[in-house]
This record gives sequence, C-alpha cells and structure tokens, in this order.
Amino acid sequence: MRRLRMGMIGGGPGSFIGPIHRIAAELDREIELVAGVFSSDAARSAQAGESYRIDPTRAYPDLDAMFAAERARADGIDFVAIVTPNHHHLPAARAALAAGLPVISDKPATATLAQARELAGHVAAAGLPYALTHTYSGYPLVREARARIAAGALGAIRKVVVEYPQGWLAGEASGKQAEWRVDPAKSGPGGCIGDIGTHAFQLAEFISGLKVTEILADLGAVVPGRPVDDDCTVLLRFENGARGVLLASQIEVGEMNGLRIRLYGEKGGLVWKQEVPNTLTLHTLDGRTEVIHAGGAQLGPDAASRTRTPTGHPEGYLEAFANIYRDFAAVLRGETAPLLPGIEDALRGMTFVDTAVTASKARAGWTALTV
Amino acid sequence: MRRLRMGMIGGGPGSFIGPIHRIAAELDREIELVAGVFSSDAARSAQAGESYRIDPTRAYPDLDAMFAAERARADGIDFVAIVTPNHHHLPAARAALAAGLPVISDKPATATLAQARELAGHVAAAGLPYALTHTYSGYPLVREARARIAAGALGAIRKVVVEYPQGWLAGEASGKQAEWRVDPAKSGPGGCIGDIGTHAFQLAEFISGLKVTEILADLGAVVPGRPVDDDCTVLLRFENGARGVLLASQIEVGEMNGLRIRLYGEKGGLVWKQEVPNTLTLHTLDGRTEVIHAGGAQLGPDAASRTRTPTGHPEGYLEAFANIYRDFAAVLRGETAPLLPGIEDALRGMTFVDTAVTASKARAGWTALTV
Amino acid sequence: MRRLRMGMIGGGPGSFIGPIHRIAAELDREIELVAGVFSSDAARSAQAGESYRIDPTRAYPDLDAMFAAERARADGIDFVAIVTPNHHHLPAARAALAAGLPVISDKPATATLAQARELAGHVAAAGLPYALTHTYSGYPLVREARARIAAGALGAIRKVVVEYPQGWLAGEASGKQAEWRVDPAKSGPGGCIGDIGTHAFQLAEFISGLKVTEILADLGAVVPGRPVDDDCTVLLRFENGARGVLLASQIEVGEMNGLRIRLYGEKGGLVWKQEVPNTLTLHTLDGRTEVIHAGGAQLGPDAASRTRTPTGHPEGYLEAFANIYRDFAAVLRGETAPLLPGIEDALRGMTFVDTAVTASKARAGWTALTV
Amino acid sequence: MRRLRMGMIGGGPGSFIGPIHRIAAELDREIELVAGVFSSDAARSAQAGESYRIDPTRAYPDLDAMFAAERARADGIDFVAIVTPNHHHLPAARAALAAGLPVISDKPATATLAQARELAGHVAAAGLPYALTHTYSGYPLVREARARIAAGALGAIRKVVVEYPQGWLAGEASGKQAEWRVDPAKSGPGGCIGDIGTHAFQLAEFISGLKVTEILADLGAVVPGRPVDDDCTVLLRFENGARGVLLASQIEVGEMNGLRIRLYGEKGGLVWKQEVPNTLTLHTLDGRTEVIHAGGAQLGPDAASRTRTPTGHPEGYLEAFANIYRDFAAVLRGETAPLLPGIEDALRGMTFVDTAVTASKARAGWTALTV
Repeated sequence: MRRLRMGMIGGGPGSFIGPIHRIAAELDREIELVAGVFSSDAARSAQAGESYRIDPTRAYPDLDAMFAAERARADGIDFVAIVTPNHHHLPAARAALAAGLPVISDKPATATLAQARELAGHVAAAGLPYALTHTYSGYPLVREARARIAAGALGAIRKVVVEYPQGWLAGEASGKQAEWRVDPAKSGPGGCIGDIGTHAFQLAEFISGLKVTEILADLGAVVPGRPVDDDCTVLLRFENGARGVLLASQIEVGEMNGLRIRLYGEKGGLVWKQEVPNTLTLHTLDGRTEVIHAGGAQLGPDAASRTRTPTGHPEGYLEAFANIYRDFAAVLRGETAPLLPGIEDALRGMTFVDTAVTASKARAGWTALTV
Repeated sequence: MRRLRMGMIGGGPGSFIGPIHRIAAELDREIELVAGVFSSDAARSAQAGESYRIDPTRAYPDLDAMFAAERARADGIDFVAIVTPNHHHLPAARAALAAGLPVISDKPATATLAQARELAGHVAAAGLPYALTHTYSGYPLVREARARIAAGALGAIRKVVVEYPQGWLAGEASGKQAEWRVDPAKSGPGGCIGDIGTHAFQLAEFISGLKVTEILADLGAVVPGRPVDDDCTVLLRFENGARGVLLASQIEVGEMNGLRIRLYGEKGGLVWKQEVPNTLTLHTLDGRTEVIHAGGAQLGPDAASRTRTPTGHPEGYLEAFANIYRDFAAVLRGETAPLLPGIEDALRGMTFVDTAVTASKARAGWTALTV
Repeated sequence: MRRLRMGMIGGGPGSFIGPIHRIAAELDREIELVAGVFSSDAARSAQAGESYRIDPTRAYPDLDAMFAAERARADGIDFVAIVTPNHHHLPAARAALAAGLPVISDKPATATLAQARELAGHVAAAGLPYALTHTYSGYPLVREARARIAAGALGAIRKVVVEYPQGWLAGEASGKQAEWRVDPAKSGPGGCIGDIGTHAFQLAEFISGLKVTEILADLGAVVPGRPVDDDCTVLLRFENGARGVLLASQIEVGEMNGLRIRLYGEKGGLVWKQEVPNTLTLHTLDGRTEVIHAGGAQLGPDAASRTRTPTGHPEGYLEAFANIYRDFAAVLRGETAPLLPGIEDALRGMTFVDTAVTASKARAGWTALTV
Repeated sequence: MRRLRMGMIGGGPGSFIGPIHRIAAELDREIELVAGVFSSDAARSAQAGESYRIDPTRAYPDLDAMFAAERARADGIDFVAIVTPNHHHLPAARAALAAGLPVISDKPATATLAQARELAGHVAAAGLPYALTHTYSGYPLVREARARIAAGALGAIRKVVVEYPQGWLAGEASGKQAEWRVDPAKSGPGGCIGDIGTHAFQLAEFISGLKVTEILADLGAVVPGRPVDDDCTVLLRFENGARGVLLASQIEVGEMNGLRIRLYGEKGGLVWKQEVPNTLTLHTLDGRTEVIHAGGAQLGPDAASRTRTPTGHPEGYLEAFANIYRDFAAVLRGETAPLLPGIEDALRGMTFVDTAVTASKARAGWTALTV
C-alpha cells in the first residue's frame, strides 16, 4: 500500500503550523509530504522546501505551477493541505478542488461565513473529500468520551462547559503568529472566537453528539486598540435543551493552551483537559470517580485504535493531529471515517463565529444558530 | 482575656452547618458555645444542646427565653450565631439585635432582598456588629491573593472567572439539607444562585477589590419540576470595566465543592481552588509560574496570621471558617477586622441574587447591579 | 456527658505542637484544656496559660504542683498530654502515671529504646490508658485504606513504599523547633529517623496490618557537622515476606511535609499522600483506577465516622489529629478504640529507631527487628 | 540535505518498540526507514515490511542479505537501528559494525556485561558511531534539569531519588512483550533491573552530571516462580558523596510508566515526572516553588531546541525518542551531540545490572561500581 502524496499550501519560513501538519501527516507513514507552495514568495517557498527536505523542484512559487507540474508527474500529489492564514483558505481550497485535488485545511475553514458557504458549494460540486483539522477531536480520550456518551454513560446531557483559555496575546500582538490573528483582513471578523473559539465549539458538539441551536455571545477586545475580539463568553443551548457555556480568551496571562471540557448528564459527568490529555475522568451519580487512561484496557475501539503507545507513555498534540490525518488518509483510500471533521463542521464553525460577532456587537441576547 | 460566649440559633439535630459553626467559633479558643435555641421544638433543642455538651439549662426552646435567661446571668452570651435556613435569618437577627446582641449569620443574609434591606436598617439602628460567614474569604491564600492584587501584582484587573460547581442536587432533592434549599418559601427566590452563587460573587469582589456594576444572568432549573434555579451562568462587569464570568451549578455530577477563581490583569494571573486550598498559583507576563504555599515564607501578614500550621500540614474548610470567627471576635473586642464580611456584603449579595433571578426570568440582558 | 479535662505538659511560648494538641483535643468538644505545666520556667508557664486562656491559677511551674493542686479539685484534670521535646517524655509520663493519670504523648515515645522499655513497664504497672499521637493514622482515608486492605481489596500485600520527605533542615538548624531536634541529648540518638521516620514506620504497619520483621538501614548526616541523621533510607521486610522501602529526609529542599504511602498486593494498589489527604487512589489488576473521596458515599465506617464535613470541604492535619484525641476520649470513657496507637506502637517505634541507628552505624546489612 | 536511510533489525509483527523507533527516527524528517530484517522468519519480515510501507524488496530475511543488498545500492542504508530482545543486541551490532554501518540500539545495550564489553571493543575497533536509546534523556525538560544543575542552580548535589514503577508484570507474564523479558536466556540475568532499572540509572547520572561509584542492591522476584527480578531497591553513592535511591518495580499494580526523579542540593531541589513530562518543578531554599513549562520562555538552548510546539501543546514519549534520533542524525552528519547516550552509557548500564544482580544474590552490602 503506497503512501499518499501531500502538497502543502502555506507553511513557509516562520510558520508554526506548517511543520506540525507535516509531522502529523507523516507520523503513521500513510502520507508523505512531497511538494508545496510554502510561500507566495518564490525564494521563501524554495527555502521552506529545503527545510522540509523535499525535492527542490517541487517547492513551487504559486498554485498554478504546482497543480500543473504535479499533474504531469506519475507520482504527483494526491491532495493538498492548506495551512495559511485564514483569508487564503478559500482561494486555495477552491483552486485545489478545481484541480481535482482533495483538501485538508486548517481551521477556521475560511475568514468569513460567506466564504464558507461558497466553499461548501465548491466541495459539493467537486465531489471530493474535504477535511478540517480540528486537532483536539483527534485525541484518543476525546473519542472515548464521545463514545461513552453515545453509549449512554451519562444519560441525557444537561450541561456542557467548554473553556479555551490562552494568555499569549495579553500584551501587544507581535511576531508572525500574532500579527495576522489580530488583523481582520486576514483573520476575518472574529479574533479569538475564530482562532480558538471554533475549536471549543466543535469539541463541544463532537463529544456531546448534540448540535448547538442558540447562543448568547459577549465578545470583548480587552487589549486597548485591538480590532478583533480577544476574550469571549458565549452561552449555549443544545438541540435537546441542554445548557452550555463556552469561554475562550487569549488574554489570560499564564494560561497556555488550556482547552478543557466538562459534560454532565442525568447519570454522570466526564472531564477532559487538553494539557493533561491522557486521562479522562468519569463521575457517576453514586459518588464514584474513575480515571480512564489513554492506552489502557478500558478503552473502546475509537480510542484504542488511535493510540500508539502503552499506558504511561504520554502522547500529545502531534499524535492527536496525526489521528486527523489518519482518518483523512482512510477517506482518500475509500474507507469511511465518520469522526473526521469536514465541510459540515466548516459551515457550523463559521456560522458560530459570524453569529457570535454579529450578535455580540448588537447586544442581541439569545440568537438562533442557523446554518 | 476571657473567651467570648456564643449563643447559637439553629443547628439542631441533623444540621450540617451548626456543628461546623461550633468548631469554627471555638477553634482559636477565643469563643465558646454556651447556649442556644437549636430548634423551635423544645425537645429537639435540648437534644442538640446535649450533643454540643453545653449546660442543659441553656438549650432554650425559643429566642425570647434565651435572651431573657442569658441577660439575667453574669456569664450570659455575648453574641448570637444564626445558622438556620434562610427564611429565619431576618427574624432571628432582628430579635437578637433588639436584645442588644451582636450577630454573626450564615449566608445568604436573608431569603429576600427586601429582608436584607430591612436587616440593614436594624443593624444600623442597633449600632452593633453584624458579620456574614462567607467562609471562603477566610482562607489564608484567598487573603494572600487579595493582598497581592491590592499591591499591584497583576496590574489593572481585566478578567475574573469564578466557578462554583457542585453535583449533589443532580438527582431528586431529598434529605434535610437538600429539601429546604429547593423550597422557595425557605430559601428565597434563588436556589443555587443564593446558596452558592453568593459565595462566588463575594469571593470575586473580595479578591479583586472591585465591585460588580452590571450582570447578565441566565439561571436554569435543570432537574424537572424544581421550583428554584440549580444551574447558573452570570456574566459580570466590574467597576473598572473588567469582564467577568460566574458559573454556579448544583447538577454537575461528580463536582463536590469546586469553588475556584482565576483573575487576570495586565501583568499576571492568579489561580486558587478551594478543594486544594493550600496552594495559590501566580503567572507573570514573562512566562513564569510560581506556586505559593500556605504557611510558607512568601506570605504577607494577612495570610500568615491566619495560618496555624507549617507548610505541608493541610488546613482546610474548618480553619478558614475559624478565621471568619477570629475576625468577628476581634471586632467584638473593639479591634478592627477590615476583611470580615458584613452588612455591605449582605446587601450586595442579596441584590445580586434578586437582580439575577429577576433579570434571568425577564431575559433582560445586561442589567445594572444597584445596591 | 461532661467534657474530659486535660492537663498539658510542655507547649510553652514558641511551641509548635502545643497549640496543635490543644486544638485537636478540643475540636470535638469531648475534651477541654484546663491546666498545664507549659514550661519549667514559672513565668513562661504562666504566659502560656494566658495564651491558652485557661484559669491563671492552673498554669503550674512543675509537675508536682500540678498533680497536687488538680487532685485537690473536684474538677481536676482527667489526663495529661505530653508535648515536650523527646527527652522529657519518659519522666513526664512516669510522673503522671504515678499520679494516677492516663497519658497521651507526642511521638516518638521517648528519646531512647531503654526509656521506652521502662515506660512500657510503668504503663503496665499503672494499668492506665497510654496513647501516642501518630497523627497521620488519624486521617479518614488512612483508615479507609487500612479497612480496605484488611477486607482483602489488594489480596496479599507484596510491597510497601512509604516516604516522608521534608526540606526544612537543609540549612543550618536554627530556631526552637530545629535546635532540639538535632541535639542528641534532647532528641535521642535518632534525628530524622526518630522525628519523622517513626511516623512513616507506624503508618506502614498501620495501613498494611503487617509487622516489619527485618530492616536494612542507611542513615546519613548530610548537613556538615550535624550530630544526628537527617536523611534515611531503610529497606523493610514484613512478616508475610512483603518487601518495603522507607525513605525519610529533612534535607530535600522544597519538600514540605510530604508523607506518602503506596501499597501493592496481588490484586491492586492503594496510594495516599498527606499533602492532598482527601483522596485515596485505588488501582486494580484489570487496569481500573478509582479515586475515593473523603466524606464520600464509598467510605466504610472507620473513615466515615472520622469525617466532619461533606466531600469537597477539605479537612486536614488538625482534624486528623483530633481523630486521635477522639479515640483517646473514647478509651477514657471506657469504650474501645482499636485503631488508637498505644504502648505497643511506642515500643515498636523506638525499637525501629534504635535498630536503624545501630545497624546503620555498623553497616550491618539486614537486621532483625526484635521488640 | 538528504534524509539518512535507516535499516531496522527487529521490529516484526507484534513488536511494541519497532514502530516507535520508526516514528521517532522519522519525526523530524532527517531519517527515513527504507529497509529491515524485521524477523528471522522471512515471511514475517516481509509482512512487517509491508506494514511499514517500505519497498518490499528491502524487507530482508537475514542480516547478511540486508548488508549485501544495501551495499550494492546507490541509496543503501546509512545505519542500522537494533530493536530486538536483548540477547540479539550484540550479534546484530557486531555484524552491522563489521559491515561498516553505524548503530543505534535499544537498551539495555546487551544481555550480559561480558557482551557489553565485547561490544565496546567492536565499537572502538570500527570507529563508527554507536548510540543507545535512553529515551527519557531526550525529554526537553530532562535536558533543562541537567543544564540548570550544571549551571549550579542547586549547588552541590546531596541526594537523588529516582523511581521507575510499573505494574504490568504483576500477574503472570503473558504475551510477546512480557515473555522474553522474564526469560533470562533472552533478557539476561537482570529482569526489571535491566529493562527499566537501567533507564533510571542512566537518568540519574544524566541529570545530576555525577557518576555512581557504589551501590547496595536488593532485588526481588515477587511473582512466584519468576526466574528474574521484578522488584528492585538500590541504594546509590555518587562520586561527590551524594546519597541516592533507585526504586524500580514491575509489580506495582496501577503504576504505568511512572519514571520520576527528584534531585536535591545545597540550594534547591528539582522534580520531574515522565507521565507529566511538560513541567519541571524547581524549589529553592527560600521557600519558593517555580513551575517551568516545556516550550516556555524560561528554557535554555538544550531544551528549547528539542521542543516542537508552543507551551500548552503536550509533547510526549515519541517526541523525546525523536530527540535521541535527532542527536544521532547530527552525529552521522559529522556534528557533535554531547548529550546522546553512547557506548559509555552501555558499559555503565550493564555494569550496574551485573553488579546489582551479583551483589543482591550475595547479600553483599555496599559494592563498588567498577566499569
């Protein structure tokens, strides 16, 4: 079974997420990075190609060049991974789909909701796989949590609290990673809500198995002069009436990447924290607390098949990311991967961002989330 | 220096909080429980008196009897502690103040805001000490957090997240402790918001040193048929513009008494959790994290003077509670105790409950908190 | 039921452990401190009496005075608590027993093994209760651990690891608490091994229900010039052949009072840590991990009856200490308290210290522990 | 810069460590698995080759075949990775070195000390790189700990406690991983002491920067009938007189892969735990505790250059392992990698195993560790 060949769009010098996509894609040896348009600057694209150790002739200066050259090869790319800032997501995906290439894209799907809707049209028209790298849904114990809830471990869900605190934008935004994230022309109208709020939103729906139907959003720009939100509180209502709270912030000094979620039902509660991802805590109504370990004997197939080491050998962010790529590879080989985030998550996420930004500005109170 | 003599109102057989007040009051040997109206049922009051090992003649059947008999003694009570369900707080306090006795009362101050206002009038008229047992503000590291923030360790506060999750009311409310808490005739219009939301509210103001000026409340009654709220989300705005979130719930299965607070400013963040109360975590903008230990050499006077053991010897809830009583004893001896919660906290807390309940029912959006 | 009356020996100005005994003894209101010889200096004894708020006439300058005066009162003391440095334990206990008074004593029982043997003779001859305050065996979850092991939760015990790290003597020993502990004339031949090693030893036997029969001791004096050990490694063999390790140190910088124990059997493992005393972790051979909470519904009677608050309300060192006094009070009232450490623990502990010190000096290898 | 080409020896169907070496080697794209003798059974070797997705013609049935065929290719292997059970380490390494190929080998270096000495001779004679995958020394914060100690953060080291508890061999050893580990013909005379004790030993020397000069070993075979040790206690003395304790066990039910180390000096203490590898705790003599985060701004170059993600994005076992391979790749490219474990660690580790096994059997007391 040959390795699938990946072309990267974005991920040039100084990129944080490009090398991470590369590692994640290749971790299970089902995929290989072979080509890329790593930068719109040809020299920088070549420089990045060298750092990734790919064939120098396959570091391209623009999309058209890549698509043309790769199409001409017997061993051309099988799909593209889009790892640019948000405003490039739509044009890159549109072009790739038009070139007949499946797409896996970093989140959020696009910079604006209108773009996401356009994207959905292109995906449908192309009939090609499209995946969105909501990394955190790749963690084995996130999948275990989802499976247990689906199997009724908590009874009907009543409450979901999902938090995503960070502190790295508490000061002035400086550096490549920070600057585009606080520039609405590149990030879209949402700052924090798009950058990490979408992860929290997707995780809440992913684990609970429930859709959010209504939100009440209060987004703030805490750092003086910042043109996008950096601190978000969003109240949630789920389709079954369950209550929810989503907190996301990038100004909480000392918080690193503190995504965490707690779900409560009639019969129990489940708690998972990204920074200590290898334990999942299950509480039951009789007062018992069980700690479930990644790699352990208690795991169901979704989690067990996404773990590479025995219990006590910590796996982390890169391995979770690799699980997303493993699912994507399965889809490309014609298998199903029902847990892989795709265009529906793209639309839901961007609807969430758009509704939150709009409703918060209008102080609109509870607002329906209509995808 | 003689011990102060306490008369208890409430705390009869089956009471959770009565014995705790007794332990807390006596822990530092500045106060002694000598009398009480532990129940409105004379036999039960006598039974409780026996369990507290007080002089049997001083377990009274009603307030008038206690006040009259104690006034007649050379060693009569110096003050009363009110530990009844909420609806008895006002009448008990009113009677005690009228009898010339200082009052220390369990929280919330009263069942309703109107009662709290009436109470404030009685306190002012009597010119006697009144204290409210917001236990958690008695923890040494809570006082350390407050002192550090007051000294500018975080710079201007930007964000406060205070959470108070519990799970013990996730099922049907049964048993003495649960039943009155979900009965509006006894608890007042607030359920969870009054029972534990007030603690969270007081703690946020206490540590931050800032007043809340506006709230957006969303209270829910999750357990079917419950006549009061059991799950609360409240957005906060502080007087300096800082953003806040208060979460309180009694249906989060597996949560025990998970009060916790995180405060963020321009220069740092502070995190404290009631269930592991002997550490306080300080984050600074340069990426450093420091763990501050109860009893340790890094503490300021507020915390150091409220710790009884060296580092590594855990103190807990009872000792925090005792710190409130120690402050109260100081006031009774004519000293000052600026950190002791009093009638202002009573009014602010009941205004918070009343505003939250009313605004939530009306889906009123942001609402001023006007005390 | 009247409160029992306690006379304290030791606990003068600057004492750490005197006030702690006072709080622990009185916490449940079964005992009351009424008299004491707090210091051999009459003025200092009086000063301490004032700080404890006892009747000034009952702060005595010496033991004979106390015994005579108290015997003459209708409300004289019922027993004595000995809280002096080690070298005073035997003379104080001997005198009290001779005066017909039961004794509760701080640990280690005496300064030397010979003294402990003499003490055992006095206890036997007097036929009076004698208890030793091995505080840590008073923690509810320690008792839960013991009960579960006794009930077979782990199967046959195979391995015990007990550690007691501290760091407060890593520098020069200065201050009242430190100085006598490193003076063999006051502490006895054991430094760290007597001060905290005995706690660890008692805890291992207490929870496992097994006696240690052989040890291999390696005691070191790490701080230059220190005349007693400050860092101890002791290998253990238990009566059933189980292997054990006991680590105790007072030079591990940053460790506070880190007593912890892990016990493993054929079917499971149990872990408890004094600094987070309100959880107990149970592992079973099938890979499950359960967290048991103080105050929770899963507790057996030994633990449940020694907890004063609901789950999530931390209890700590003082409450554990109070459980020892509660047991002692029960014995004084004629009840049984099988978990209360007594003269057998005294002899075993001092035999452990003596054997460890002697065998370590001789580099003797495995040595029988013969009480 | 082309990728280095790796040939694997071992790692056939059912192997735990083979796929982990593959991931670790390739993570940074400096190395590529291209060939292997994955099993001595040709069909199984081919099956493994397929699972690794390598060219089917390069899955060889024996070493000679691999060395001959690869030597004949322009793109032949640059080195071999040995991932077999212990008893195959020497013959595989000897053959590879004889074929002119550098070697990276799983630990322990060999099954016996005699073999390790022979190996050292071959390495010296060949003049080729040899590395030993002591994975845990690849963790960024382990390197940070080492660097801080080398820079004097703790002053002179006084005490090292290193523990490596596991529980997976508490029952009967069954399954491919367990069986060879308890068979002295395959594992060598050491069981637990060789399998994980060597990791703990290497880590203690690695971080402290000190050599162990004397040990006192007490190894036990707890599970009835087991022919090798499964529970080890070893006292250590370091070259500067520092005291140490090494605990390793495979029968502690519930322990997963709990390697942890605490080092104490005159001025401070450092604590690191493999299962939560992304924090390092530093205590100083003034009572301060600092938490150092992987990926954070406080790290020195050794740690910073071995981290691939920002703080809060957990890295784990595979990334630590990859750091060992990254160092090895640097050596192959002619750079230096002073932290890479090599033949000296091999000899020291096997001397440790041999001395511990021999001295424990003889109940020999303190024994010099003479490499």
